[in-house]
Amino acid sequence: MPKISQKANQMPASPIRKLVPYAEQAKKAGRKVYHLNIGQPDIETPEVMLNAIKNFAPKVVEYSHSAGIESYRKKLAGYYKTHNINVDYSDIMITTGGSEAIMIAMMTCLNEGDEIIIPEPFYANYNGFAQQAGVVVKPVRSYIESGFALPSITKFEKMITRKTKAIMICNPGNPTGYLYTRAELEALRELVQKHDLFLFADEVYREFCYDGAEYVSVMHLTGIDNNVVLLDSVSKRYSACGARIGALISKNKEVMAGALKFAQARLSPPTFGQVASEAAIDTPASYFEAVKKEYVARRDFVVDALNKIDGVFCPKPQGAFYCIARLPVNDSDEFCQWLLEKFEYKNQTVMLAPATGFYFSEDAGKDEVRIAYVLNLNDLKNSMICLEEALKVYPGKRKIDAQQKEKAV
Amino acid sequence: MPKISQKANQMPASPIRKLVPYAEQAKKAGRKVYHLNIGQPDIETPEVMLNAIKNFAPKVVEYSHSAGIESYRKKLAGYYKTHNINVDYSDIMITTGGSEAIMIAMMTCLNEGDEIIIPEPFYANYNGFAQQAGVVVKPVRSYIESGFALPSITKFEKMITRKTKAIMICNPGNPTGYLYTRAELEALRELVQKHDLFLFADEVYREFCYDGAEYVSVMHLTGIDNNVVLLDSVSKRYSACGARIGALISKNKEVMAGALKFAQARLSPPTFGQVASEAAIDTPASYFEAVKKEYVARRDFVVDALNKIDGVFCPKPQGAFYCIARLPVNDSDEFCQWLLEKFEYKNQTVMLAPATGFYFSEDAGKDEVRIAYVLNLNDLKNSMICLEEALKVYPGKRKIDAQQKEKAV
Repeated sequence: MPKISQKANQMPASPIRKLVPYAEQAKKAGRKVYHLNIGQPDIETPEVMLNAIKNFAPKVVEYSHSAGIESYRKKLAGYYKTHNINVDYSDIMITTGGSEAIMIAMMTCLNEGDEIIIPEPFYANYNGFAQQAGVVVKPVRSYIESGFALPSITKFEKMITRKTKAIMICNPGNPTGYLYTRAELEALRELVQKHDLFLFADEVYREFCYDGAEYVSVMHLTGIDNNVVLLDSVSKRYSACGARIGALISKNKEVMAGALKFAQARLSPPTFGQVASEAAIDTPASYFEAVKKEYVARRDFVVDALNKIDGVFCPKPQGAFYCIARLPVNDSDEFCQWLLEKFEYKNQTVMLAPATGFYFSEDAGKDEVRIAYVLNLNDLKNSMICLEEALKVYPGKRKIDAQQKEKAV
Repeated sequence: MPKISQKANQMPASPIRKLVPYAEQAKKAGRKVYHLNIGQPDIETPEVMLNAIKNFAPKVVEYSHSAGIESYRKKLAGYYKTHNINVDYSDIMITTGGSEAIMIAMMTCLNEGDEIIIPEPFYANYNGFAQQAGVVVKPVRSYIESGFALPSITKFEKMITRKTKAIMICNPGNPTGYLYTRAELEALRELVQKHDLFLFADEVYREFCYDGAEYVSVMHLTGIDNNVVLLDSVSKRYSACGARIGALISKNKEVMAGALKFAQARLSPPTFGQVASEAAIDTPASYFEAVKKEYVARRDFVVDALNKIDGVFCPKPQGAFYCIARLPVNDSDEFCQWLLEKFEYKNQTVMLAPATGFYFSEDAGKDEVRIAYVLNLNDLKNSMICLEEALKVYPGKRKIDAQQKEKAV
């Protein structure tokens, strides 16, 4: 029997999906499982988007242009203008989800063995894409105490080697919900300019900024047009994860020409999804207002409830629909498994994502979990009660003193 | 300005799309261009498939399972049974087009620097996928004189090194239209068994076998279950290229587990396309009968018309909707460009694909073109008249004697 590749062996398995069999078992045992583990929103997809699919008129479902349907790219340039992002449609390449945009960006801009610096915790699949592209991830740690603010530029500077080719951020952040300030982004601008690095920005949660906080895109930064690669997706914006439509955007013509060659090899992004996404640009502002209001209410409830639980700390994020909470547990992977395998409260339990999967550094995030507040308020309320009850009886609770002692050593 | 990667520089540009600007110029000049250059069929997508999209009911367009929607995978296993291919749904992973299936198969089964032997001429994008996966393509030449039959096993044997990990075929073939016989496939079976190689088979033209010829799948071969990886797509079967739905199929559990990790990183294949493709399995047999009849009529007309042109030779293929013709020209790239740039007959011209793009070996295919008979009979008739008239006046015609002299040297 022929052997599979080293890459296939080394590819990280999804840290979240590891727990799926335990969730299935819990459900088979008749338990209600609240899914706070994945970023699959329950919000309805805009009607204009679904109607476009229902009215799909062509008799032949043809390939589109490899860079995407031209009318969609043009309309999308208009959408970006509403966010003060000035791009021409030729700066936009439509991809199969944000995933493909990231993959193509890495392959286009980095050689095998080149390094990309990413603040951790970060979206776990960045690892998988880096692995496929042969790119080396260099994490720079951000901390829960500061709400996962950008690490100091000095820390970045220290990590830059001859192999460093890019910095990647997610803003607003998954899994942190942190929204970078203008000052933080200006600092990054100076850094990438000084070292002539690419700056990749995953801004798929652009629509989810709260409390009137300012959304600053890397595309708003001046003087680094040739460094910036914006990675986008309609998945979260329109609650249309299954459409698999994203975009890679850059004013660097060499990047766009290189990226197009990868895009040509896979022929074209999905036609149905593009048609739906083009229509989605007409989604009324009222849709986003309602969605935002809903998420703010959910965030406020969840963060408040978490901080009321004994030994739990959760900074209040200003974006996306995730938060990271520190729990009084020794090992969040074990705890999350235990919640599904051993625990029930009134025949209910909760599924969380252990934060270890979002850290690259060994042993980081062992007392943290990511919570996606993608359920309605009532379900969230029940979830938080479950969590509180679980922590009362969990046998693997952290002994605060012992841990602090270890740290001192 | 940061530099793009070596991979991006080395990625082959689409050999067909190079000619697109010349076609656009011809159209701007008011000329009618017959597109025989790409495999975008004009056949209508089955109604059951389009209706499924029009009736898409969910309110949220969710991610599917990374391996595809379970009900689709189960129904697809049933579809394969109608072709005597016995697979369980767990042997099937749904991909974003056949393209992704090929890409994931290469990454899962081959290490960087490993070699894959492919009979040439072959589908040009295999090069792009190999380039991305760091896999080395080793072409084994097939010839127009034998209609592009499988090269002798001795030739394959000679090419096998310690680095050889897989053999890849396309059956029925793009760009050749050649349908491998059972004897040819049995010979490949022995070879891969002897050397314990993977056997990748791109069988996306399964429905397009003519003259009652037997379609033999690699899945029909016994004793090599762990070697075979079947690569499939709905694009041609249902004339639904834009759906971007394919499949990677293998009974090798390690391959499937490895492939799933790559699939998980990109989350899921397109939901709309999967819903349409699941419904497409109910396409009535009468649809395929009508399509086949149409293609046979087109093939018969085109092959006959080509062979009637002075100096042209075209073997009669038994599958797919392509043929390769040898033309009396020195350089098919120049000729195809000239057709668009300089030629017109009654204000019409024809766009062909130079066969050089389908050969890996330098200088091969310089007097050959691929013709996709994806237009209606009337358009095909006009195309063939154009080609005949063009060859009468083309200044770069091959001097047969001179070339034969060269060969003798």
